[in-house]
Amino acid sequence: MANKDMEKLVAHAKNSGFVYQGSEIYDGLANTWDYGPLGVEMKNNIKKLWWKRFIQESPYNVGLDSAIFMNPRVWEASGHVGGFSDPLIDCKNCKTRHRADKLIEGYDPDVHSDGWEPEKMMEYIRDHHIKCPDCGSEDFTDIREFELMFKTYMGVVKDAKNVVYLRPETAQGIFVNFKNIQRTSRKKVPFGIGQIGKSFRNEITPGNFIFRTREFEQMELEFFCKPDTDLDWFHYWKDGCMQFLKDLGLTSENLRFRDHEQEELSFYSKATSDIEYLYPAPLGWGELWGVADRTDYDLSRHQEFSKKNLEYLDPETNQKYIPYVIEPSVGADRLFLSVFADAYDEEQLENDTRIVMHLHPAVAPIKAAILPLTKKQSDKAMEVYSMLAQDFNVEFDVAGQIGKRYRRQDAIGTPFCITVDFDSETDQTVTLRDRDSMEQIRLPIDELKSYIAEKIKF
Amino acid sequence: MANKDMEKLVAHAKNSGFVYQGSEIYDGLANTWDYGPLGVEMKNNIKKLWWKRFIQESPYNVGLDSAIFMNPRVWEASGHVGGFSDPLIDCKNCKTRHRADKLIEGYDPDVHSDGWEPEKMMEYIRDHHIKCPDCGSEDFTDIREFELMFKTYMGVVKDAKNVVYLRPETAQGIFVNFKNIQRTSRKKVPFGIGQIGKSFRNEITPGNFIFRTREFEQMELEFFCKPDTDLDWFHYWKDGCMQFLKDLGLTSENLRFRDHEQEELSFYSKATSDIEYLYPAPLGWGELWGVADRTDYDLSRHQEFSKKNLEYLDPETNQKYIPYVIEPSVGADRLFLSVFADAYDEEQLENDTRIVMHLHPAVAPIKAAILPLTKKQSDKAMEVYSMLAQDFNVEFDVAGQIGKRYRRQDAIGTPFCITVDFDSETDQTVTLRDRDSMEQIRLPIDELKSYIAEKIKF
Repeated sequence: MANKDMEKLVAHAKNSGFVYQGSEIYDGLANTWDYGPLGVEMKNNIKKLWWKRFIQESPYNVGLDSAIFMNPRVWEASGHVGGFSDPLIDCKNCKTRHRADKLIEGYDPDVHSDGWEPEKMMEYIRDHHIKCPDCGSEDFTDIREFELMFKTYMGVVKDAKNVVYLRPETAQGIFVNFKNIQRTSRKKVPFGIGQIGKSFRNEITPGNFIFRTREFEQMELEFFCKPDTDLDWFHYWKDGCMQFLKDLGLTSENLRFRDHEQEELSFYSKATSDIEYLYPAPLGWGELWGVADRTDYDLSRHQEFSKKNLEYLDPETNQKYIPYVIEPSVGADRLFLSVFADAYDEEQLENDTRIVMHLHPAVAPIKAAILPLTKKQSDKAMEVYSMLAQDFNVEFDVAGQIGKRYRRQDAIGTPFCITVDFDSETDQTVTLRDRDSMEQIRLPIDELKSYIAEKIKF
Repeated sequence: MANKDMEKLVAHAKNSGFVYQGSEIYDGLANTWDYGPLGVEMKNNIKKLWWKRFIQESPYNVGLDSAIFMNPRVWEASGHVGGFSDPLIDCKNCKTRHRADKLIEGYDPDVHSDGWEPEKMMEYIRDHHIKCPDCGSEDFTDIREFELMFKTYMGVVKDAKNVVYLRPETAQGIFVNFKNIQRTSRKKVPFGIGQIGKSFRNEITPGNFIFRTREFEQMELEFFCKPDTDLDWFHYWKDGCMQFLKDLGLTSENLRFRDHEQEELSFYSKATSDIEYLYPAPLGWGELWGVADRTDYDLSRHQEFSKKNLEYLDPETNQKYIPYVIEPSVGADRLFLSVFADAYDEEQLENDTRIVMHLHPAVAPIKAAILPLTKKQSDKAMEVYSMLAQDFNVEFDVAGQIGKRYRRQDAIGTPFCITVDFDSETDQTVTLRDRDSMEQIRLPIDELKSYIAEKIKF
């Protein structure tokens, strides 16, 4: 097993073309990251598999792609305007700024203070003599709330009535479309609406590579159910999310549930559970997927603020009610990080060490590398490449000796290397090498497509 | 042929679940649109097919997904800060505001003034006595330039050094990553980098449904080539883009090239050509896809502003040069609109009229609808549904008489309706109805997957 840490992973991600620093030639822009040729393929694969599992294969759910810009009243109803902020505290001695809840968590990792009132946090910091991590002083300012939404202006005039926000979550786009979707898709409760899209939060303490970024991509499902069935569905989706992660290939020992304590819960939530992942040092255990029972809070608020009736009429019982909501929400970037970290390994071979990414073949950015043994086989290899490129993302690689090319493909997680050699022209077969076992088999060219298709099934 | 106009299409898009007005329960937010359950599937299909054709199947190109937030110096280099603006003019009489170039175009559709200096536009408006479209007055203010980028602040303090913009195009994310990608993917010129992503422009006159929106999704390719080969590649991609549109099923008569006149060209462009589509009334012919020869302008500017060397060293000739760039750029939303409009039809049948969307099966949001003939066949039908849902987006529909269900599927472009009837249980066959011909055939259940897979090939 490799000794993994974030620094090593970031370097590997950059050097192999998964993730670069954003705007790098301009010395970057804090906390932005660009997915390179391999990263975009892998991220797209993760998104497609989420969509397949949670939308396409689910008899309950449908998809949505709502706009990032929404009517600002949406954020009043949701509580984000006025209520969506970070508790900031400054050290009076060294002038550094901190998030109060993070100070408390740094002091005692078992205390989860992110639902606390500022006064309670202040009291805890004082009572436990928590010190500034930078200078050791205990002399802090009061806690100030810092607005987390990015604000801009739409139209010619920069006045209050032209303010728009970048959405801080994709969830509200789903709630405001509940009625339209229920009507046009003729869905009956229980049913869910999922979407994948960018959200933006002006975080004070982003960091740890793509773990927490100000611009991030969410994969959210809002599942609408009858009020008395919500806890059943809560458990259904908790299990479904965990199963999905295991199917993606994440190591079971690196995954765990963390049920929120009563005092951590938002006042409207009946139950919340995080799936945590054991990220490489220095991160450790951290949230990957949040599953929350949000009761009828969201739809009720939108009914109140929009003055539109958002009740559902049950066609069987003729009962009217506001559905309860179960929200499983995961960040595509954070899931990318988990999958990337989990797959990374350094293996000691007989006379060599290899970096190998044990990615699920469905997640791997490149499904097969087509390698002509010498320049002479290039035409035949290109033929194989073009045939496979119709169905899969494949790579053509002529550079360097074959062993070096294998190592390069191992390091980016390519499940199969296909070598076109002297015999390929005459007997129409190729050598197929497996990334994990490094074993080689001989296969007819016309069986390649179905062989690979079978292996990358999810 | 249906008498199509935008109003009818917008209504159909909304009522069937393709596209809703954004934030509708809050009476909307100007010019925002949400893709519903059918719309998101169709848009995803269009994006996937673009990716397949331009990235996956191309031996030249690789993908990227760069951040929306970029270092602000990027926009100085690109000319967007200071230079990216709309020429606005106010009517002094009725106080309405207009885009000067649109006034000119409205007066004479053959005049393309969007590359003109403000003075030249002003002169043209005066010389031709162009009138305010709202009140008929000729009394206009001077032209003012209006900044098109959305601006916000990142971090705690709202000062100049924390300004960030929402990217107005995805192209610059590609240019700044040119070196990183060339190095890590070991690509040799000529090669291209493509990406799909949201861009934002604070347009003064957005409108016409999803034709021009402030938040929109681009599919851009930047193709890097040797300086003396640029015009060849320009034609190569022009043809490739047109072919892609025809393969998507767009009617040839609704497509045309419009080569830009010398005076329309940006000063750095050697050649630009738009593929125009004949949009439904009142739009008419309008830009769908722009293909531009941008010379070495972009990389040269970034080399100048970033002080990083962006030259390419040709490994064969040992020559160093800044590659020329061909940019084929299309909006996913606008392409969605073209495909949607083109597919829409109202057909007069013997005793009926049907709305039918003749979408390419690869683009259709739902590949097959599984319809139990009566409630009794529901279990068997659900079995067929679950089997097909592993591979395709399919729908299960029990509601209403079978003819009505066919019409509903025709209206959303579902290529196949699969009826599970009395015999299905015993002989394991179903009836498959074709959307376009309305012909029905009998098929074994275990042949359904391969039958559909073959038909939706692209």
